[in-house]
Amino acid sequence: MTRLFNDPATFAEDMVAGFAAAHPEHIRAVHGGVVRARKSPQAKVAVLTGGGSGHYPAFCGVVGDGFADGSVIGNVFTSPSAAQAYSVGREAENGGGVLFMFGNYAGDVMNFGQAAQRLTSEGVPARTFAVTDDIASAPREDLAKRRGIAGGFTVYKTASAAAEEGADLDGVVRIAERTNARTRTLGVAFAGCTLPGQREPLFTVPEGKLGLGLGIHGEPGVSESELTSAADLARTLVEGLLAERPEEAREDRRVAVILNGLGSTKYEELYVLWGTVARLLADAGLELVRPEVGELVTSLDMAGCSLTLTWLDEELERLWLAPADTPAFRRGQLADAPRPVVAARDSAPEPRAAAASSPLETATGAAAGTSATAVRALRAAHTVLHEQEEALGRLDAVAGDGDHGRGMCKGVDAALAAAEKAHADGAAPAPLLAAAGDAWAAEAGGTSGALWGAGLRALGAGLPADRAPEPAEWAAGARAARDAVTALGKAEPGDKTLVDALDPFVTAFTRRTGAGEEPAAAFAAAAEEARTAAEATAELRPRLGRARPLAERSIGTPDPGATSLALVLNALIPLGG
Amino acid sequence: MTRLFNDPATFAEDMVAGFAAAHPEHIRAVHGGVVRARKSPQAKVAVLTGGGSGHYPAFCGVVGDGFADGSVIGNVFTSPSAAQAYSVGREAENGGGVLFMFGNYAGDVMNFGQAAQRLTSEGVPARTFAVTDDIASAPREDLAKRRGIAGGFTVYKTASAAAEEGADLDGVVRIAERTNARTRTLGVAFAGCTLPGQREPLFTVPEGKLGLGLGIHGEPGVSESELTSAADLARTLVEGLLAERPEEAREDRRVAVILNGLGSTKYEELYVLWGTVARLLADAGLELVRPEVGELVTSLDMAGCSLTLTWLDEELERLWLAPADTPAFRRGQLADAPRPVVAARDSAPEPRAAAASSPLETATGAAAGTSATAVRALRAAHTVLHEQEEALGRLDAVAGDGDHGRGMCKGVDAALAAAEKAHADGAAPAPLLAAAGDAWAAEAGGTSGALWGAGLRALGAGLPADRAPEPAEWAAGARAARDAVTALGKAEPGDKTLVDALDPFVTAFTRRTGAGEEPAAAFAAAAEEARTAAEATAELRPRLGRARPLAERSIGTPDPGATSLALVLNALIPLGG
Repeated sequence: MTRLFNDPATFAEDMVAGFAAAHPEHIRAVHGGVVRARKSPQAKVAVLTGGGSGHYPAFCGVVGDGFADGSVIGNVFTSPSAAQAYSVGREAENGGGVLFMFGNYAGDVMNFGQAAQRLTSEGVPARTFAVTDDIASAPREDLAKRRGIAGGFTVYKTASAAAEEGADLDGVVRIAERTNARTRTLGVAFAGCTLPGQREPLFTVPEGKLGLGLGIHGEPGVSESELTSAADLARTLVEGLLAERPEEAREDRRVAVILNGLGSTKYEELYVLWGTVARLLADAGLELVRPEVGELVTSLDMAGCSLTLTWLDEELERLWLAPADTPAFRRGQLADAPRPVVAARDSAPEPRAAAASSPLETATGAAAGTSATAVRALRAAHTVLHEQEEALGRLDAVAGDGDHGRGMCKGVDAALAAAEKAHADGAAPAPLLAAAGDAWAAEAGGTSGALWGAGLRALGAGLPADRAPEPAEWAAGARAARDAVTALGKAEPGDKTLVDALDPFVTAFTRRTGAGEEPAAAFAAAAEEARTAAEATAELRPRLGRARPLAERSIGTPDPGATSLALVLNALIPLGG
Repeated sequence: MTRLFNDPATFAEDMVAGFAAAHPEHIRAVHGGVVRARKSPQAKVAVLTGGGSGHYPAFCGVVGDGFADGSVIGNVFTSPSAAQAYSVGREAENGGGVLFMFGNYAGDVMNFGQAAQRLTSEGVPARTFAVTDDIASAPREDLAKRRGIAGGFTVYKTASAAAEEGADLDGVVRIAERTNARTRTLGVAFAGCTLPGQREPLFTVPEGKLGLGLGIHGEPGVSESELTSAADLARTLVEGLLAERPEEAREDRRVAVILNGLGSTKYEELYVLWGTVARLLADAGLELVRPEVGELVTSLDMAGCSLTLTWLDEELERLWLAPADTPAFRRGQLADAPRPVVAARDSAPEPRAAAASSPLETATGAAAGTSATAVRALRAAHTVLHEQEEALGRLDAVAGDGDHGRGMCKGVDAALAAAEKAHADGAAPAPLLAAAGDAWAAEAGGTSGALWGAGLRALGAGLPADRAPEPAEWAAGARAARDAVTALGKAEPGDKTLVDALDPFVTAFTRRTGAGEEPAAAFAAAAEEARTAAEATAELRPRLGRARPLAERSIGTPDPGATSLALVLNALIPLGG
């Protein structure tokens, strides 16, 4: 289990501070993550890795010459926010554009996508690339739905080396696409990891069994079987990957190989396994090019391992073998340029989510009362979410990584603080809710953080600054929030997301206020419908970014996102809507 | 726990085979361990690290340019045999002599000492150096009795760099001595590791507690306390080390630092801890020189960590920073010489304990019957040791690492096979017992292996080749065996070792046969005395290479070595002595 931390809530921040203090010759901390200690060459594409923390050396351990230009660091197993990604992108870009690279998870796709959009809109060409190497996470017909696991290491390596050679943004993306198309990973887990501050592991595997294809955040795998011997496991992994040999690499015999330990399956065990793996791959006619055996993409102290094959062509082999010099990975010979040693003091990360310094539009007349109501509503949400934090975590642990309660609390804490500050400054409802939404997204990270942030911002956007809103304006705000959430998350009703509670609420509130019902009564009735709808999600199967086996496992459990929305809405009823 | 293996009995061999297959550009396997893939420069001192396996990257992960010339690899947590060390020394030496470096444990001191002696007697100057950095393992007045843990990394690094610079054997030893004298480590453990094939961990620490000073094989520490926060642990470690600042480094402010994870305490946790450690060390006026945060000396999947400080002078700092290129550790810039890639097939380790190929002295007359008796005796020992393997392991687990039963079985298996082969070749008793003893020592490794090997060889040395021995010759053989064991192990009666059972046996057998008693009856009575004496060791405190707290813990438990000797002697009674 994870035992060393100060406050579990600041685990990632504390980790980044220590990481920066340990490696001043390679990296420096910036808001949202880290970048190289010395500026990359002018016009070089900035390659940024990123994702939740808990996977070191992924992702920040490979920032340095020849590899990544920076890394965006989220909370444990949680996507960083779009604001973090934007910030690191700004720090790292040097005239050649930005490529964000990450594993294919809904929260990462969403947050990095937003950051890329914002950078592009500001004149910095930015793209994203999601790695999909995990063959157990979706069938062959659905390649694009597969998750990204240890194979990301190869994809980040070749794309970074291409950028170092001077390829332009399109060229770097092409290398990433080609490497990803030729990369396959199969993983197994023997025991779960424990998040900082938790007493129980995220998931368990029965003693003596292995979970084949189990994800690096405990996402369910394809099967469970006896763990017999290292030799048998080697056969399972090699046969599984060879059956997935990419069509376009039919003629290629040279492969990059990664035998990756997840955390507590240690080096000697990996070498025992490697003895058989190397022989089986050679028997299959493959030539191994600088195989890596060790811990490259971990999951805290999870027990298990994965095998990755990347079928190389001449160009990819050159890029795979190119030199690199990073805190966690070195290869080949590097230019002997002196490295500036940055004092730890200078590289301390800036505080996250610095309060916006631009002046906010001020509330006049009855609008000040609306701003006060918004703060009270956030306070009520704060209370109920903290009360239910553990219960929401348990719901999420059934089919997710169990951090929904934590993420909602981090989000609402930040949103409430931002709203209180804005209210003290006399802000109108629209800028107040925008500040609250931005803070929520920046601090919570993950999928829910991005959605709640966008929803709050949209809810406020149409509210007047000089009078109390009409019931129809509240209804329009609710619809705008729903539309922002669905536009960002791409979920439709029935996909087992918070949309399944949000949509009935918005529909009922619009209908009832449209029919002239008192706003408070309409709100209470609509919130009650959201509660019923959230409970009904128990019978649905999830869709967004989730693999097939997950669907089976989650049936019978309400969706945590829909549940938390319903909880918040019902907590607002006593406020009078 | 350790889950990946084929046969637990061949775990180390399988690991070495996989390790060699993964790193042909750095190392090649030889009998007993590994050496650099390319020959070191002529007349360079060969620096060899070594010890039990289970600690990767220690010790074999640091073989390569700028670091070690080779590594001797024992079974898990078990000293390699003298034969292994000799073999790797022979392979690695290149005209400059050999330095064996290892942690201060009785088995390692003994086996590497024997190997160095043999090499020296054959004209290859060889020395040994035992690292003693663990401040928790013995008080300041007993520096030389301290165990070696993660601080060995610094000592091996500077000594290796000195050898690479061209220092001669005395010069390299001086660097090792100076570095060791300036190196202090304090470790903590939160949970034990599990040996391959075992279902239960070697030791446990109560949930939420930390064992301060707990050894890397589970040797008892100095205290047990609450694990509160990473910051508190950082204070404990830093304050503990600063209180042990070496007198000779009073003026030195620059330190090499290692924050080492033991296996399942992961990188992010170490970085959280590092944040406070780095600040406290800076507050104490120290300047950190290329600190290392990560896994350098592990103990399978043990949970815990250690902090090492080495106070540097100018020369040691240069050696600490010198370039190195090994499978697990790289530093600085290295010459870009092409590396020969050795095919995996060519680097496969030779079978261990190859049968002696020189002709053995042949038994004539009644001596053939004596040889047959010796084989029957080894077969009876084989039976009783395998029956009692688990019980002996449990005895050893109280104050040791629980491998005594396994080690005795490995030894007797090899000894019986060697004796049977020698008997089939018609060997006389003396060469037969010498072959059995050598095989025992080579295969079992550890302290017991070396002692039993020496004892068997000495027992046979005086036996005639052409007739049955007289009772006085058997008694002389028994005394020779006892003298060989005490000369090698330096134990005296009362030290809680197998000498406590061996000495009463030898004394009683000598006295009874000297008084004219029938040898069979004398043997039975003497074996019975050994049994009583072995049981009485329960009340003794151990001495050899053991730290103070161990003594307290082992009181009430008989010594496993004395117990196994008594078991074997009593199993021989039915044979008629």
